[in-house]
Amino acid sequence: MKKSVQEQLEVIRRGAVEIIDEKELAAKLARGKPLRVKAGFDPTSADLHLGHTVLIQKLRHFQQLGHQVLFLIGDFTARIGDPSGRSETRPQLADEEIARNAATYQEQAFKILDADKTEVLWNSHWLDRLSAADLVRLASEHTVARMLERDDFDKRHKGRQPIGIHEFLYPLVQGYDSCEMRADVELGGTDQKFNLLVGRDLQRNRSQEPQVVVTMPLLEGLDGVKKMSKSYGNAIGVTEPPNEMYGKVMSISDELMARYYELLSEAGQEVLDDVSSGRAHPMDAKKALAAELVARFHGREAAAGAELEFSKRFQQGGLPEDIPEVSLDADGDALWVCRLLSQSGLVSSNGEAKRLIQQGGVKLDGQRVSDPAAEVPATGSVLVQVGKRRIARVVFQEG
Amino acid sequence: MKKSVQEQLEVIRRGAVEIIDEKELAAKLARGKPLRVKAGFDPTSADLHLGHTVLIQKLRHFQQLGHQVLFLIGDFTARIGDPSGRSETRPQLADEEIARNAATYQEQAFKILDADKTEVLWNSHWLDRLSAADLVRLASEHTVARMLERDDFDKRHKGRQPIGIHEFLYPLVQGYDSCEMRADVELGGTDQKFNLLVGRDLQRNRSQEPQVVVTMPLLEGLDGVKKMSKSYGNAIGVTEPPNEMYGKVMSISDELMARYYELLSEAGQEVLDDVSSGRAHPMDAKKALAAELVARFHGREAAAGAELEFSKRFQQGGLPEDIPEVSLDADGDALWVCRLLSQSGLVSSNGEAKRLIQQGGVKLDGQRVSDPAAEVPATGSVLVQVGKRRIARVVFQEG
Repeated sequence: MKKSVQEQLEVIRRGAVEIIDEKELAAKLARGKPLRVKAGFDPTSADLHLGHTVLIQKLRHFQQLGHQVLFLIGDFTARIGDPSGRSETRPQLADEEIARNAATYQEQAFKILDADKTEVLWNSHWLDRLSAADLVRLASEHTVARMLERDDFDKRHKGRQPIGIHEFLYPLVQGYDSCEMRADVELGGTDQKFNLLVGRDLQRNRSQEPQVVVTMPLLEGLDGVKKMSKSYGNAIGVTEPPNEMYGKVMSISDELMARYYELLSEAGQEVLDDVSSGRAHPMDAKKALAAELVARFHGREAAAGAELEFSKRFQQGGLPEDIPEVSLDADGDALWVCRLLSQSGLVSSNGEAKRLIQQGGVKLDGQRVSDPAAEVPATGSVLVQVGKRRIARVVFQEG
Repeated sequence: MKKSVQEQLEVIRRGAVEIIDEKELAAKLARGKPLRVKAGFDPTSADLHLGHTVLIQKLRHFQQLGHQVLFLIGDFTARIGDPSGRSETRPQLADEEIARNAATYQEQAFKILDADKTEVLWNSHWLDRLSAADLVRLASEHTVARMLERDDFDKRHKGRQPIGIHEFLYPLVQGYDSCEMRADVELGGTDQKFNLLVGRDLQRNRSQEPQVVVTMPLLEGLDGVKKMSKSYGNAIGVTEPPNEMYGKVMSISDELMARYYELLSEAGQEVLDDVSSGRAHPMDAKKALAAELVARFHGREAAAGAELEFSKRFQQGGLPEDIPEVSLDADGDALWVCRLLSQSGLVSSNGEAKRLIQQGGVKLDGQRVSDPAAEVPATGSVLVQVGKRRIARVVFQEG
């Protein structure tokens, strides 16, 4: 049974930051034909994390509503390196690395999307055929001033950080993709808004109906503050082992949990309301979310196993439900484990910490620490246990 | 007999504004091998004028010194439109127009250069093979900030005049030409300095020895103020009929004549010194220059004919050697001929002017005026004669 335009809009709005614009979208939906919904992924990293899957979840929504999902692998654009939101020029990648990453992206995407109903496209397909002269003509469709209006370019320009001229070509090429794909809708993170709007301009120049732009938030990492990124050490990788993934989800704050529910879970609106209002028991809700995500990437069995393991390790070990939080300054890349214990207030001195570690009484994120000389990455957060009673979640704050 | 490095440098320095840098040039010359000397011409206009030939004259000097001249036809870059020194985005040209113009450029260039010792290259030869991806990589070799340092871009950016992104690609493509051509020296107008220096950077990035940059002044037009340009109405076109060309050269000021000698004539240093010091009689020197230039583009016979015609028209008609100059404001594109006569002070009223024209007593640049309603272009200068006695050179001043 097909949903009405209003019902569809409700699904599409979930978690979205902006829809530019909703009236246009309603008009497109009202035609009753499946829309061509584009999202592009530059395979610039080998490691996908949950942050990358926010867009894929939204594609899934469109797919469930009966629309045509266009999963674009930006193998050409990965070679340029999208500068969006970056404070410095991004290195250009080698072709083999891009091909390897692209394979991973597809594999992971199809854990969320229905492969039979997804069109996978590679932008090298048309961009490799583009000549330098074609690109010059494309470049003539936009001005330097408008490009410098983009937030991150503006900041870098004013801050005298170099911007490579090729970086100005990126938004144009991304917009050109939309023309080639005849996209009705394009999804992207909020940091992509400018690029997505360029697509509208280029489509208009080619007498195409401009695509509707749907921006999604950048998912916060485990710290609940910075956007999820491997380099911030606050990411949950989609290929992480079940127990780690489960444990990391269990370590997030209740507030962040509501956010993850909205952007990552398949749970319906009622569940979301229960979670955000606190009607659902936080620990239960978190377990359900952790199990859902582990099941998505590793299967139901692995999820059940991870849940059992977690219960054994923490709850049967008497982990309280209210764990005090301690903030520490992240004064470097790593912190000596004994200093972590003393600075968090769980022990009175480095010496005591050392002794307790040697006695096997210290756990970090549920794992026993045996080496008193160990160093701990000073990013994100870590659950620290000393014996059965002394426990805290240490959160590292950037200076 | 080959010239020494010092003797060669003297020839190369003639009329040049900058040599970047002269030490490097001396070192290249000292190797005793013919240098590869590049000058690029974008065939963007159908009409070549003497301003365009300043670079070709300098190429001729290098040719006379035994070096290899590379005459580059920028048919690819003409499609981009070089924005150098322009206050607005230049329209991109159609291919047929470019091909037509290029044919004219070659024909005219070989009236100055020895065709047997000139290599003609078209940059489409390598640039048409360049892919969009190649151009992206090329674009990554330069930054937006450095591009905005270029004087004209800076002015346009600050003045909120649009700059097309393709205009940032122009200097890169021009520099890339130098790499492909393995240029040892590149000549260009002073407005090309930035682009020429980009060539040095790109060559360095490819482990080539950077080209020496020789900038030449932009030749002033007949008014002696603005650079020669068809659109300013102050140009001497190389295809203009002999009599017109001769007459226009005769109309320039003595000061400008010295400049034209330096930049356009084959005359040696002694003659130049005589002209600039005033030892040479101005009228004789001007005639010699006019004859040289007419002979260059139309042959010796045509030059002799033009000289005769000029003498008949002016000197046998009693044209004095000291003609008073009158300045008029150029308040529009054109001026009614009667107003020209009255404002120049040669007649007392428009009515008198009308009557004299009807009687056949008025000449403009030696040509009788028969239509009292005629309009005169309000640019450059015009020699006005009323009867045999009343005579003035009217110079239009831009507001």
